[in-house]
Amino acid sequence: MAKRGPVLVVDIGGTKMAGGVCDPDGTLLTWESVPTPAGADAQVLWETLESLLAAVLHRAGGPDLAGVGSGCGGPMRWPDGLVSPLNIPGWRDFPLRPALAERFGRDGVPVRLHNDAICMTVGEHWRGAGRGTTSMLGMVVSTGVGGGLVADGRLVNGASGNAGHIGHVIVDAENGPLCTCGGRGCLEAIARGPGLAAWAQSQGWRAGEADVTGKELAEDAALGHPVAQAALGRAGRALGIAIASATSLCDLEVVAVGGGLSQAGELLFTPLRAALAEYARLEFTHKVRVAPAVLGQTAGLVGAGALVLRGERYWAGD
Amino acid sequence: MAKRGPVLVVDIGGTKMAGGVCDPDGTLLTWESVPTPAGADAQVLWETLESLLAAVLHRAGGPDLAGVGSGCGGPMRWPDGLVSPLNIPGWRDFPLRPALAERFGRDGVPVRLHNDAICMTVGEHWRGAGRGTTSMLGMVVSTGVGGGLVADGRLVNGASGNAGHIGHVIVDAENGPLCTCGGRGCLEAIARGPGLAAWAQSQGWRAGEADVTGKELAEDAALGHPVAQAALGRAGRALGIAIASATSLCDLEVVAVGGGLSQAGELLFTPLRAALAEYARLEFTHKVRVAPAVLGQTAGLVGAGALVLRGERYWAGD
Repeated sequence: MAKRGPVLVVDIGGTKMAGGVCDPDGTLLTWESVPTPAGADAQVLWETLESLLAAVLHRAGGPDLAGVGSGCGGPMRWPDGLVSPLNIPGWRDFPLRPALAERFGRDGVPVRLHNDAICMTVGEHWRGAGRGTTSMLGMVVSTGVGGGLVADGRLVNGASGNAGHIGHVIVDAENGPLCTCGGRGCLEAIARGPGLAAWAQSQGWRAGEADVTGKELAEDAALGHPVAQAALGRAGRALGIAIASATSLCDLEVVAVGGGLSQAGELLFTPLRAALAEYARLEFTHKVRVAPAVLGQTAGLVGAGALVLRGERYWAGD
Repeated sequence: MAKRGPVLVVDIGGTKMAGGVCDPDGTLLTWESVPTPAGADAQVLWETLESLLAAVLHRAGGPDLAGVGSGCGGPMRWPDGLVSPLNIPGWRDFPLRPALAERFGRDGVPVRLHNDAICMTVGEHWRGAGRGTTSMLGMVVSTGVGGGLVADGRLVNGASGNAGHIGHVIVDAENGPLCTCGGRGCLEAIARGPGLAAWAQSQGWRAGEADVTGKELAEDAALGHPVAQAALGRAGRALGIAIASATSLCDLEVVAVGGGLSQAGELLFTPLRAALAEYARLEFTHKVRVAPAVLGQTAGLVGAGALVLRGERYWAGD
């Protein structure tokens, strides 16, 4: 019988580390984030996280924890929880799950860890845009394009814990850009922020400027820049095609789209829905609902909590 | 507690109706098929099936059945089991599951029905190419391209029982052929037998001949006809791209490929594997194993049996 009580929740990405305390119903009692010292070594990274979590627990009054749930950028060895986040070079096969268990997991309570995009998906399914559905794809469209998959009411892990990689669904096999994975025409290669910015620069937007990002692209699009808008249209179309494929394969009810680029709103969602309507034509696929993620920055923390608090649906790792 | 004992199994397609008796371990004690009277009305279709099943039960010695499992061509209303098989126009919303229950389901034993491609997938997962794996895509490449999905050791049904439609994963969104679904560039539009034959005819193979099929195409390819071989290469490449997408999304361990066109062997599988190697480049995707289905014509019957005999994995419809 699982212990009732609050859960220490963690969400680690290349930009920010977040920690919080989640009550049994999925409400965050407190949470906080700090910049990830992405260039630091393994020990400094761990100490930064440990301090953050100690402060959060202190602020919550030192609760009697029912467990610890964590999301972290991939790749990772799952369910062992040895993490090698792409954007945190100081952690390579860092034993994050064992370290969290040793430091915060007293009394044998569960300590669980999954990919950050999967935690976002779980959060949105439990308490956000996918609440009450049985079949959902969660997407994080940002510097990369990640995701997670819920089918028949449960999180899909896949053979190695990597299910949900919608970013490597192929959208334009013959003429698409090369992808960092080594393939061609993957959704991520087209729709990731840096890919979009590079494409827009090749079309004359801020040509020659260094270090422009998807965020600036979205801002300029909102101000009416036609090339920036065309770039978002390109991303939206690619997203719509990939979502159509995923809906056919997984018979999805809802797709929750989050991540920085989703803040572009209708400049992204209008072309997305147009492409989806063009390509999802079966009776069961044209009904799929695409919705912006609603939990914002906290989705990953809430989902990390659900790994412990709703383990029967979202955890099959032990 | 489910009853132990043999199960009456059924597999209905546009070409053949098959019936059999499956023992609790998945061995077919007897089975038989008859041509589907595809142009007949609903009553004649049912009587043909009923006679076939009565004969099969008689031959098996009138066993005390533990249930009835059936596959049928889609679409259907699932789990209600009202079927409207594309290639059997006489059945539109025909209540096949209720009819089987009334005629053969005495003593309240379970009577279950699913899509025929899903039953093939379940058969291959339980007793065929996917045995022992937790994550598998089954494919039927024939007049259409159908499939089914197993994730984390369970059949995925999806929001409306339609998960597994790999045939409508998009392979060539911009330049692919129109699909019967109304979309463009779906795997099925490229790789279905009639689509391949049409393409080959447009390239000069048997130009002008009426009613050529994928079967003749495969035969001519085996005899060395270069256009017929190119058509299989085109199908194999499309299959490889779609499988790469599905593997990224679902973290598949094995893909079992059956159906008439898979009989073309290496003329299909070599280009398939080449495209898969080109597009499935992540550490977890490049490991996926593509295998010919091994149960042949009996996969659907064995899978129909599993809906009853291994319901905890393969049935969530009630």
